[in-house]
Amino acid sequence: MHAISHYQELITKYFSELHLTKEPKNLYDPIEYILSLGGKRMRPTLTLMATEAFDVDCKKALAAATAIEVFHNFSLVHDDIMDDAPLRRGNETVHEKWNINTGILSGDAMLILAYQHFEEYEPKIFRELAKLFSKTALEVCEGQQYDVDFETRDDVTIPEYLKMIEYKTAVLVAAAMKMGAIVAETTTKNADLIYDFGLNLGLAFQLQDDYLDAFGDPETFGKQVGGDIIENKKTYLYLKAIAFSDENQKNQLMHLFSIHPSDNNDKINTVKDIFNVTDASSATQKAIQEYTLKAFETLEKINISPDKKEILRVFGENLMNRNV
Amino acid sequence: MHAISHYQELITKYFSELHLTKEPKNLYDPIEYILSLGGKRMRPTLTLMATEAFDVDCKKALAAATAIEVFHNFSLVHDDIMDDAPLRRGNETVHEKWNINTGILSGDAMLILAYQHFEEYEPKIFRELAKLFSKTALEVCEGQQYDVDFETRDDVTIPEYLKMIEYKTAVLVAAAMKMGAIVAETTTKNADLIYDFGLNLGLAFQLQDDYLDAFGDPETFGKQVGGDIIENKKTYLYLKAIAFSDENQKNQLMHLFSIHPSDNNDKINTVKDIFNVTDASSATQKAIQEYTLKAFETLEKINISPDKKEILRVFGENLMNRNV
Repeated sequence: MHAISHYQELITKYFSELHLTKEPKNLYDPIEYILSLGGKRMRPTLTLMATEAFDVDCKKALAAATAIEVFHNFSLVHDDIMDDAPLRRGNETVHEKWNINTGILSGDAMLILAYQHFEEYEPKIFRELAKLFSKTALEVCEGQQYDVDFETRDDVTIPEYLKMIEYKTAVLVAAAMKMGAIVAETTTKNADLIYDFGLNLGLAFQLQDDYLDAFGDPETFGKQVGGDIIENKKTYLYLKAIAFSDENQKNQLMHLFSIHPSDNNDKINTVKDIFNVTDASSATQKAIQEYTLKAFETLEKINISPDKKEILRVFGENLMNRNV
Repeated sequence: MHAISHYQELITKYFSELHLTKEPKNLYDPIEYILSLGGKRMRPTLTLMATEAFDVDCKKALAAATAIEVFHNFSLVHDDIMDDAPLRRGNETVHEKWNINTGILSGDAMLILAYQHFEEYEPKIFRELAKLFSKTALEVCEGQQYDVDFETRDDVTIPEYLKMIEYKTAVLVAAAMKMGAIVAETTTKNADLIYDFGLNLGLAFQLQDDYLDAFGDPETFGKQVGGDIIENKKTYLYLKAIAFSDENQKNQLMHLFSIHPSDNNDKINTVKDIFNVTDASSATQKAIQEYTLKAFETLEKINISPDKKEILRVFGENLMNRNV
């Protein structure tokens, strides 16, 4: 197995050879545009790493890895329409650069293009990959719907929230790794274990994202710190704070999450104080640690050599330390 | 083989057992709604008929037929958003009854659900069906994009228009029939021939739709006669009229297709007169006859018994006479 950059280069090279400059241009140009904006290619990297962890040449997994990345970008294009987001990776979103109809139709085409990458594989593998992909893609849609539903609900429970981030984010990380296992034709047990490794790592990563959105270092976080608070997003931190707070804190928090002041500094600082004094922030850190630990415990059970486990563990640690 | 109503009943029964009442309700309710609006179920009926034409129990094709119908409804949901259409089959469109975001996300889920129906089949058949499905679905997206592009172009050629309706409409009819052949595990030659039969029948049907939109009987056509003229839609009739008209007629036609009068009666009558005097209407009828003839010639080449051919031919004739 190699450094992350090795996999990222393989993926970039494979992407550059995809020949997306097809007709009609108004359908394919937006697809080429969003795929060219890059990003860390974390999900396809995980697919390639998983294949190599099971002693199979990772190049064999490039098509499956590409399917995952194309799907991820499809979901970004449609989510950005739904969220009315102007920017993605520092550039105009597809529906801003073109229009909403183009965003819808190009997104649809990307979802289909994702499936087509599995045609690289023989029938048995093809069926397994496509089946896992469909299940996962549907869960991502369900997660997105729960996220939308939660915006207008004030009785969201912690288990409901965890299910939402599992579906919206973690299952795709898990499926990316399992696809590597399927391509490598390892045992079902190994494939299921690496899925669970990815799922718990994905959950830990998303909860950490919630945490860093409030308490991260503005220099390194990459997004605007306090963004979730500004948008009144009911994250894990918020739900824990509501659960742990007294009547007074609860009323204050609910009030702050119903307003949109012109200057957000006071709001952000007050909310962060409540997150701290209610122990919501430490409870969130604890949950992150628990999911990370669960991921590494699952990793131990996979039947691969210790050096392969070590590499996946280092990747997981780097991911949680946001060094990748 | 049976009467059309037999297949329609089988499909209705299969649909009623699909268990679409899943969580989250805001994702699945719109899916159940659009699928319950019915329609003639022409495409899945063709899949079942094709399977029986190759002497295999049509029940084996119900899952593939369902995939086609779910995909067709997915494309209606997203197209209705793009066209800002208020009504579908006499009922509110999904984005009208809910909202645009719900229409986008429920549509996405339907596209994935369509693929899941192929999981009924063993790997070799699954791969063939999913591959044909992806190719076809992508062509439908391309056809929709061409249709959108043509709205703002005044130099669309007849071959370009034919390619657009082939992709937007005919390939799905063709794929519906070929899927029946794939499920029946007939020869590649037979599968390709029945695809061509469906493709030509689909083209004839769409051209006839263009023709009837101007010259159909308001009692039986089902849609508003003159609708394409009111919306300045550059159909086959219009493109042929432009090609055949003198400078004066051409200018008149181009002017009429740039205005939106409050009373459309004069506009419709003048346009229809030009369609007639330029022989655009007879040229359209001729094209319909040619594609229908081509479909039936292809049907003759399929290696099935004469009684099976007869049933498919009667179905084709009924379709073109709008009796199904």
